Amino acid sequence: MNFSSDTSAPAHPNVLKALSAANTGLEASYGIDVVTQRLRARLADVFNTDDFDYWLTASGTASNALALSCFCPPTGAVLCHAGAHIAVDERGAPEFFSGGGKLHLLRGPDGKIGAAQLDEALARINHDFVHETPAHVLSLTNLTENGTAYSVAEVSDYAAKAHATGLVVHLDGARLGNALVATGASAAEMSWKAGVDVLTFGLTKTGAMGCEIILLFGEARQKKRELEARAKRSGHMPPKMRYLAAQAEAMLADRLWLDLATHANEMARRMAEGLRRQGVDLAFEPQGNEVFALLSEAQVSVLHNAGAVFYPWMGGSQRLVCSWATTPEEVDAFLGVLKG
Amino acid sequence: MNFSSDTSAPAHPNVLKALSAANTGLEASYGIDVVTQRLRARLADVFNTDDFDYWLTASGTASNALALSCFCPPTGAVLCHAGAHIAVDERGAPEFFSGGGKLHLLRGPDGKIGAAQLDEALARINHDFVHETPAHVLSLTNLTENGTAYSVAEVSDYAAKAHATGLVVHLDGARLGNALVATGASAAEMSWKAGVDVLTFGLTKTGAMGCEIILLFGEARQKKRELEARAKRSGHMPPKMRYLAAQAEAMLADRLWLDLATHANEMARRMAEGLRRQGVDLAFEPQGNEVFALLSEAQVSVLHNAGAVFYPWMGGSQRLVCSWATTPEEVDAFLGVLKG
Amino acid sequence: MNFSSDTSAPAHPNVLKALSAANTGLEASYGIDVVTQRLRARLADVFNTDDFDYWLTASGTASNALALSCFCPPTGAVLCHAGAHIAVDERGAPEFFSGGGKLHLLRGPDGKIGAAQLDEALARINHDFVHETPAHVLSLTNLTENGTAYSVAEVSDYAAKAHATGLVVHLDGARLGNALVATGASAAEMSWKAGVDVLTFGLTKTGAMGCEIILLFGEARQKKRELEARAKRSGHMPPKMRYLAAQAEAMLADRLWLDLATHANEMARRMAEGLRRQGVDLAFEPQGNEVFALLSEAQVSVLHNAGAVFYPWMGGSQRLVCSWATTPEEVDAFLGVLKG
Amino acid sequence: MNFSSDTSAPAHPNVLKALSAANTGLEASYGIDVVTQRLRARLADVFNTDDFDYWLTASGTASNALALSCFCPPTGAVLCHAGAHIAVDERGAPEFFSGGGKLHLLRGPDGKIGAAQLDEALARINHDFVHETPAHVLSLTNLTENGTAYSVAEVSDYAAKAHATGLVVHLDGARLGNALVATGASAAEMSWKAGVDVLTFGLTKTGAMGCEIILLFGEARQKKRELEARAKRSGHMPPKMRYLAAQAEAMLADRLWLDLATHANEMARRMAEGLRRQGVDLAFEPQGNEVFALLSEAQVSVLHNAGAVFYPWMGGSQRLVCSWATTPEEVDAFLGVLKG
Repeated sequence: MNFSSDTSAPAHPNVLKALSAANTGLEASYGIDVVTQRLRARLADVFNTDDFDYWLTASGTASNALALSCFCPPTGAVLCHAGAHIAVDERGAPEFFSGGGKLHLLRGPDGKIGAAQLDEALARINHDFVHETPAHVLSLTNLTENGTAYSVAEVSDYAAKAHATGLVVHLDGARLGNALVATGASAAEMSWKAGVDVLTFGLTKTGAMGCEIILLFGEARQKKRELEARAKRSGHMPPKMRYLAAQAEAMLADRLWLDLATHANEMARRMAEGLRRQGVDLAFEPQGNEVFALLSEAQVSVLHNAGAVFYPWMGGSQRLVCSWATTPEEVDAFLGVLKG
Repeated sequence: MNFSSDTSAPAHPNVLKALSAANTGLEASYGIDVVTQRLRARLADVFNTDDFDYWLTASGTASNALALSCFCPPTGAVLCHAGAHIAVDERGAPEFFSGGGKLHLLRGPDGKIGAAQLDEALARINHDFVHETPAHVLSLTNLTENGTAYSVAEVSDYAAKAHATGLVVHLDGARLGNALVATGASAAEMSWKAGVDVLTFGLTKTGAMGCEIILLFGEARQKKRELEARAKRSGHMPPKMRYLAAQAEAMLADRLWLDLATHANEMARRMAEGLRRQGVDLAFEPQGNEVFALLSEAQVSVLHNAGAVFYPWMGGSQRLVCSWATTPEEVDAFLGVLKG
Repeated sequence: MNFSSDTSAPAHPNVLKALSAANTGLEASYGIDVVTQRLRARLADVFNTDDFDYWLTASGTASNALALSCFCPPTGAVLCHAGAHIAVDERGAPEFFSGGGKLHLLRGPDGKIGAAQLDEALARINHDFVHETPAHVLSLTNLTENGTAYSVAEVSDYAAKAHATGLVVHLDGARLGNALVATGASAAEMSWKAGVDVLTFGLTKTGAMGCEIILLFGEARQKKRELEARAKRSGHMPPKMRYLAAQAEAMLADRLWLDLATHANEMARRMAEGLRRQGVDLAFEPQGNEVFALLSEAQVSVLHNAGAVFYPWMGGSQRLVCSWATTPEEVDAFLGVLKG
Repeated sequence: MNFSSDTSAPAHPNVLKALSAANTGLEASYGIDVVTQRLRARLADVFNTDDFDYWLTASGTASNALALSCFCPPTGAVLCHAGAHIAVDERGAPEFFSGGGKLHLLRGPDGKIGAAQLDEALARINHDFVHETPAHVLSLTNLTENGTAYSVAEVSDYAAKAHATGLVVHLDGARLGNALVATGASAAEMSWKAGVDVLTFGLTKTGAMGCEIILLFGEARQKKRELEARAKRSGHMPPKMRYLAAQAEAMLADRLWLDLATHANEMARRMAEGLRRQGVDLAFEPQGNEVFALLSEAQVSVLHNAGAVFYPWMGGSQRLVCSWATTPEEVDAFLGVLKG
């Protein structure tokens, strides 16, 4: 009954198989190997375009920070939700990678930036007023940190507003698969078609060992060389990169990543429904693989005593995360303890 | 006939086996998993001490830069050889991680800092002279970038001088195994017993998929928490860290890493002897797994046409790197082409 | 009728006289000149202690950022009001000087951090939780950006709480003189006696040409050398430092700075009273030399047409700043236009 | 007999007069005041062009670092002489301001980069090789740190080579006046006409209180806004900027700066000739206001005992710096002590 995080899950067996398959012969180092190059066709298929560049890392924090640092100068700022992972959970990585750039924190319900907040923030940008730090990037997170999902329409709308003000649009897709399953959108629809310029496409939480893909779409591709230079100097250019690429290949093959996300989302729904049946309120409407349950102290205590693992979260809720490895039995056992 | 780099080799099969073995069940994220914790005992055994802390990354560049940044303030400098990997091949990672610290480049033959150069550099340090940047760290590399090895006596001597001037001693051991095999020293003798405060212990070039260990010895352990904070914000705290630890375990089990380094060194010796028999001069005396051959343009051309892979290096030499995966047949084939 | 800023005022004639007096003979460079050294006694007198070190700059932004960067590591944060000058008006200087540290923005009425907000922020600090950025410094501003003043009791209370949590306390005293006059406190009472560890003591807005003093009190003096190194590498160690010191001497002589602040505060009170007599509401209770008037668009228009200079500010108010050079006639003229 | 530095001299009386003249009335802050705007015409006259932008600071270190940081990205490098002020005497300011960029140190006699060294460095630049840090800027110093001068032909030649490789050319002109007097070149000939893109035009050592001007020529003007943003966040946007501008005006009026530089150079020549008459060798051929004398320990001792002030310098020489305030009597007294 471990609902602590989707990063607590092991890697899917296909990922391990792919690593073994890639483990033969000598390969060029630093990303010019056959496996990494081969990945392009698969990504083109997933995103339904050839107009992109990509880079692989083993870290979501690094992927976000690298992506942002290519578009936010040291004298600039990134707009993001006050509860965004880049704001709260990355120990200042965006500030570090950007050389001292700022995050401008916006509010909004359910982990989503409010439209009025965004409008106000965009209206405040004044590149001629040297004293204040103007925003250069809008960073959205989908699935959000509250387990909710932006719709394609919302992303498109926000991206259009950001573009109109000269901003670049970043999407932190650490749980992109969960958001796509939740909304029924395709990867293309939720990214470049909606106006996303640079995407952190996470596969680790979905089922990889450690694999994130930074994608630059369209005009943003001009930053390819800078992205590589920044990756190199931050230690995110592993010599044996084929092992990152192999993970990505395995995950993207035959829609495995979407199947795994579908399963995780279903487990979360099972959990949510079970909790509600028992009268437990949820802090947010669960759309992906995370449930934020407003459990009483007594309930938390009973569950902990029974061996359930989970952490307290925003607004007094308890976060329950399901992954590709979560079983219905595990969810039911949790609910059984609660009921008992 | 690929002698381009030891990073072109695949991972040793035991490493893959260990990954599979670790791939079961849910584990705590971010380094507090069972596998990562279990590694302590193995490291204690290898280094013959309990007075250490450790951190795992997938990148040698990151390991070096993280290690240095804990001891070199933004207003300070690191002493290193002008040809050191941190100076030449890491795209400014030490400057980035340290927040703008400097590298003071020292000369010396065979990729080793000259004693006189070190003495002069140490004598120049004046913390009271605010205009110049004082060195805070001495960084040695063993095996050096020229394939030579510092002896334990040399490391001890340099470390003692550095300590006497208040510096911390870092060892870049990306090819530590090769250096230990070359010198007959133990890991303990070449590190903390010789005065090394912080070690980048590389296993990737030796045979891992991507695994480096930063070790803090003795007093340097005070930087443990800072090291973790810096690792986090630079994206070097992978959520599923067990897979780094599993690699390390496999490599350290039954002296596998030393066996692999021994093999690589032997292949290099075979190459060196074969070359010399054919009258080819070597730019440096090969002590580890790298040979720097002074081949003529015609020779290079013949070899390239025969499919041999290698790169030009310092002083007009060609670098030939052997790895755990290099076979005697491969070496002999290379020599045969050259002879023919 | 220029009420745009106290930095629009010229320097007091005594400052110019002091510059001329210092302009004789050759002097040692970089702060070891006679004038800079002589300043120590005067500062000891003003702050009623010998337990301090000091550094001079020509910039309030630099003084704040230098002070903060000595105490907030790149992996740490500074607590400050959301409207603080360091947060809003310094183009990311604290982030830049600290190497990517963060500002944690706290709310509270009248430009002052709310007690509950401070308590909550302090309670959240957890140095063992590597993902979030822990605060290392509390930065207060007195006079605040809203023209209000923290009392000595408030500063003492907040500093005690901060110290109890291991934080260092910084005071941005760009308008310290105005705050002291407003509260009746002495410089010592409002700084080290209240628990302030590092003070940015501004004299530019009070009447200097460009002179700010960073003071380190007690334990904070350990950062003296680091402060100097950071000042040097950021270009805040002017070779002919005697001219900064001469300004400070002139301002501190015979309580000139306090007399000038008293005048500026009186002009603001005259303005505030005049406005209220005409039924104009003020956004904040003016305690120093700034008045935030809730003027109608029509009133603003009339005043601008009459040549009055002032800027819109927070909450729809207009900021009216008085300086040592503001005359009663100027205030009355402004009020006259408004009335007319 | 103070020959320690030209920064030990006071400001020229005209500078003080200009400060007093500027000290009337209220002025807009942060560089949009009348005096700063008025300076444009004077600079246009000095540099014989309208195609420039400018920014004022009180620090040569800051001016150099700000200038470099606009053209050298964090992942790039600056080519400069190993003895350049930016390399040796600025405590890592270029690395700090650029966000971790590197300096690539080149050798060459007399403080001037050797042509072969420059060619080799330029030939090594490979933006496609991600591991090494490519140079983006060539920084020359004129007058050099060894008191020698680059001719216009040399600057033009080096700048042309740099431009052909895609680099931007920076000139550190902390002693530009001395170099112009030494070579007979005009300010225009030695700067934009010779291919200099960005100039640090120093007036402090020439006779100001503290005033340096950053000039962007031609294409480099595109960095104007970035320069201002960087100046702001590093504390180099003084609110009362009129006092920097007033200094510049005074220095540039009626060729005062060139007259003062001429005097300083003449005093150095008097010193050099006197020393040589006494058989003292000079380490470098003095072309500006600095003499590097190879005095014996006994001679140094006699001079120090007689009250002469000067510092040991590179190559075992003693540096003797003359300024606008140096008198022939002072030089003769020094020579007299040496003779006696």
